[in-house]
Amino acid sequence: MPEKIAVVGAGSWGTALAVLLARKGFKVSLWARRPEFAEMLQKNRENSTYLPGVFLPENIEVKNNMSQVVQGANLVVLSVPSHAVRHTARLLKPLLEEETTVVNTAKGLELDSGLRLSQVLEQEGISTPAVLSGPSHAEEVGRGLPTSVVVTAKKKVVAEYVQEVFMGPSFRVYTNPDLIGVELGGALKNIIALATGMSDGLSLGDNARAALMTRGLAEITRLGMALGANPLTFAGLAGLGDLIVTCCSMYSRNRRAGIELGRGRPLEEVLAGMGMVVEGVPTTAAARKLAQELGIPMPITEEVYQVLYKGKPVRECVSALMERKRTVETGFLGVTWS
Amino acid sequence: MPEKIAVVGAGSWGTALAVLLARKGFKVSLWARRPEFAEMLQKNRENSTYLPGVFLPENIEVKNNMSQVVQGANLVVLSVPSHAVRHTARLLKPLLEEETTVVNTAKGLELDSGLRLSQVLEQEGISTPAVLSGPSHAEEVGRGLPTSVVVTAKKKVVAEYVQEVFMGPSFRVYTNPDLIGVELGGALKNIIALATGMSDGLSLGDNARAALMTRGLAEITRLGMALGANPLTFAGLAGLGDLIVTCCSMYSRNRRAGIELGRGRPLEEVLAGMGMVVEGVPTTAAARKLAQELGIPMPITEEVYQVLYKGKPVRECVSALMERKRTVETGFLGVTWS
Repeated sequence: MPEKIAVVGAGSWGTALAVLLARKGFKVSLWARRPEFAEMLQKNRENSTYLPGVFLPENIEVKNNMSQVVQGANLVVLSVPSHAVRHTARLLKPLLEEETTVVNTAKGLELDSGLRLSQVLEQEGISTPAVLSGPSHAEEVGRGLPTSVVVTAKKKVVAEYVQEVFMGPSFRVYTNPDLIGVELGGALKNIIALATGMSDGLSLGDNARAALMTRGLAEITRLGMALGANPLTFAGLAGLGDLIVTCCSMYSRNRRAGIELGRGRPLEEVLAGMGMVVEGVPTTAAARKLAQELGIPMPITEEVYQVLYKGKPVRECVSALMERKRTVETGFLGVTWS
Repeated sequence: MPEKIAVVGAGSWGTALAVLLARKGFKVSLWARRPEFAEMLQKNRENSTYLPGVFLPENIEVKNNMSQVVQGANLVVLSVPSHAVRHTARLLKPLLEEETTVVNTAKGLELDSGLRLSQVLEQEGISTPAVLSGPSHAEEVGRGLPTSVVVTAKKKVVAEYVQEVFMGPSFRVYTNPDLIGVELGGALKNIIALATGMSDGLSLGDNARAALMTRGLAEITRLGMALGANPLTFAGLAGLGDLIVTCCSMYSRNRRAGIELGRGRPLEEVLAGMGMVVEGVPTTAAARKLAQELGIPMPITEEVYQVLYKGKPVRECVSALMERKRTVETGFLGVTWS
């Protein structure tokens, strides 16, 4: 077990994971990007901006100096927005010892390259990163509510080490050997959250939302298979589980953005009103590009793209999706009538 | 295309399907069990008991005489509670012509035998029945909101015929060749709806609900595979799709019953208060029996069974589920670390 754990990033998820690990008794060092924010956290013992109401236990120290935070840590938890992963990895790499395990907890694809975030980390010299994903609102983890997640890595021993470190009576951790599938599930589900938000904004009902989620997961699975993932991973916590929590909860920024779009508000106005990153917007562009390159049909992603980037009225998407030609549900998986 | 369609059962789902088919222009004959109810429907043109606010088009006739209803129908839609399927099939069989297609729309397992409902129909001499399933609240179909479902049968030609009959701009129908999986998905999801209701009744949050749904689907899939189903069917509309609509909506009786149980009310009181069939209660007993006979671990079903039939306090189930031994998420599917 690690003697010290570094958590890099003091947003809601980084803070919640730091608290979870501290409650398990680990010595935790939490890095905050802005010096004054680090100072405030260290003093007030509450992240009132991103995780209000959750007390930071004594065994968490908050600092702005990354070198001091990482010094002596056997495990580094990376919890920055996906667009900041490459930059942060560059700062982090020279500070790491050879045997330090890095766990990425951001979800997304790199915008221009379409790379998964573990690929970005590897390009920056961080070998065999682990990835933690699954349905996990930070607010609920902070409050100690029961949560189940999945951890993956290229090596079993790494994934099982991370599983052991995080697992506890209110935080259940499964391992999954499918690194590609776990990462894609977490990233691509935000596209479907936008779509279901739009459907909710149009008041299309529960049937429509369930169908969008199911067929959305089907097209995510289709793209994932073309990229080397196991289709069954998408039926697990990093796929279906995360999709449920994102599409059925008002905590989700992507869903809230979709609802506003469904009500007819223009994208710029919606994004300005959120004041936070809506990961699904760039992810939709990245996924559509991949799908086109690989020749994978992704009808829901295409409609979301048309709304986001081409100003298509949301209501027109409904008939575009409902009136596609008749088909076999599992045909794309090779399961069809004999 | 059929000249006349008979819908047997004038509950919310039977009525909604009759309206859907009538709106497509078919001549529809709807059977109601109680003579006075049939008369009321035929006269008032609204099923104010089970589907208020939806007008019955002129091309629906409502009768209590099953022989007259079925007479000349090329397609019979069976829409009675699962416990009434065998009895209704016995009444129906002598009235059917050789080439009449029967579509079952009830979801459940026969209580004592554990049989799927298409097996019950076949035992009663109705050959090659089709099954229509998926996320479809009757209220929303009645209002013409977009809905996607799946149809299956032992023969492709039967499934495609039913697909063609039902499909329309607000009702999308996929076929799926996996009869066993489609039927089990629709029946077993109610167990998980009870479990997530209990979790919601305990205010355990969105993470817990998403985890229960995902791991619930995993154990349903496990049982389904042992019974000959394709695991991928459970990630489709009849599995995941129906699970979402059942677990995230207040329309669902199973979910509502679970919530009351989660709040600590005893089962008898909850069932008395519902005044309607809660299909998940007998299904839990049937599934647990099958799982024990086949040696399939179904931890969530087991906890639901203990609450329903053994008076186990709901809160004790949480630790029982969270503190199970560490495992590989997809291990039961044969996907594990190499």
